[in-house]
Amino acid sequence: MESGVGTAPTPRGLPYYVAFSQLLGLTVVAMTGAWLGLYRGGIAWESTLQFNVHPLCMVIGLVFLQGDALLVYRVFRNEAKRTTKVLHGLLHVFAFIIALVGLVAVFDYHKKEGYADLYSLHSWCGILVFILYFVQWLVGFSFFLFPGASFSLRSCYRPQHIFFGATIFLLSVGTALLGLKEALLFKLGTKYSTFAPEGVLANILGLLLACFGVVVLYILTRADWKRPPQAEEQALSMDFKTLTEGDSPSSQ
Amino acid sequence: MESGVGTAPTPRGLPYYVAFSQLLGLTVVAMTGAWLGLYRGGIAWESTLQFNVHPLCMVIGLVFLQGDALLVYRVFRNEAKRTTKVLHGLLHVFAFIIALVGLVAVFDYHKKEGYADLYSLHSWCGILVFILYFVQWLVGFSFFLFPGASFSLRSCYRPQHIFFGATIFLLSVGTALLGLKEALLFKLGTKYSTFAPEGVLANILGLLLACFGVVVLYILTRADWKRPPQAEEQALSMDFKTLTEGDSPSSQ
Repeated sequence: MESGVGTAPTPRGLPYYVAFSQLLGLTVVAMTGAWLGLYRGGIAWESTLQFNVHPLCMVIGLVFLQGDALLVYRVFRNEAKRTTKVLHGLLHVFAFIIALVGLVAVFDYHKKEGYADLYSLHSWCGILVFILYFVQWLVGFSFFLFPGASFSLRSCYRPQHIFFGATIFLLSVGTALLGLKEALLFKLGTKYSTFAPEGVLANILGLLLACFGVVVLYILTRADWKRPPQAEEQALSMDFKTLTEGDSPSSQ
Repeated sequence: MESGVGTAPTPRGLPYYVAFSQLLGLTVVAMTGAWLGLYRGGIAWESTLQFNVHPLCMVIGLVFLQGDALLVYRVFRNEAKRTTKVLHGLLHVFAFIIALVGLVAVFDYHKKEGYADLYSLHSWCGILVFILYFVQWLVGFSFFLFPGASFSLRSCYRPQHIFFGATIFLLSVGTALLGLKEALLFKLGTKYSTFAPEGVLANILGLLLACFGVVVLYILTRADWKRPPQAEEQALSMDFKTLTEGDSPSSQ
């Protein structure tokens, strides 16, 4: 079926921006690992190091993988829409599972240490973003992957899905910055103002996190980089319906 | 000249969203004032209260007024483009001046108290956003209000101006959240986890700040809420050129 899909030329500039976003995203993940390894004793599930699972999972799941899930439609421009859609949904599932592990880690750590839950702005934003992310995935799945929704319904919902997808991603980046700041201030306190190496490293990590958010947003919002509509898409979008109802697209 | 400008109907929903954004924005400003008044001793220039000038000015300037400056093209849909453009530029000037006062306040306070400058993630993001805001204003002025730039140059730059305008606004909101978090953790410390009233108030303020950012972004990105192009705009955009060169638009 993929052979019937036409190929539009890749816009000039797009591959460089995508490569730059991946370089930034991987640097952010590596730097989070380096920060936790160098200044926080590393990562483990069965000790006080369990807390450190939280920032690493959140950065991998809700920042890097979520960002990449949004870029799928720009990168795989000439693949069948259904393939791209499934990849988009799957990347979000991976991101969600990894973020869930990060969430369990911090609640479990708080419980073991006797710390209060959900009192800070970071935690309020975090739990809100996590719920919104789950709802967005469920609603997105119901509209775009589940065979029930009509084309007109999908067309109405698509702009909302795109807006809230980008917004949840940006809120995730913002929440990560708040968490980073919290971790720094709790440990460093007034030492933060002496330009302690951990503080400087974490500040650079924070700036790179924000840069990753901006570059992903730039790629998403460039009008001329949007995925071109393909003639076959209407039929392809009906595949699920066809499979479940044993009917041909043309008869609908 | 304004009599020649046609009137397009205001999209349904837009006035409600704009009203909601204003309600949110004013609540955020009032709540920042209430937080500083109730828990931080109020505001003054000639004492340790000088620090409090900083958050209030930043929220008024770089959040509320900057947000409103972005909404000008959605709200004044049927005014002459030049009028809207001047209002957009002026609101940004006010925002910049108020933010500058807020910036002077915190540097002056740090100097008097012997505190270090620019060591935190909040301050790094803040100074970066402030410089970007200034550069964006200068470049925007050169392209859109100064008579020199050609129409093709303006058309090329317009999408970049819009993207970076929205991005700088979002970065301003994020930086405000980081600053709020910093102010809370420095003062409350571990008391933050006991759900101290100041902490809860500031968390709600943080969520409302993020909401204001999201609502402004939603209004800006709704494709069907964009300002409709008007037939007279080409001639109107040439007004400055016409005035300075004493030439008629049609002759160019």
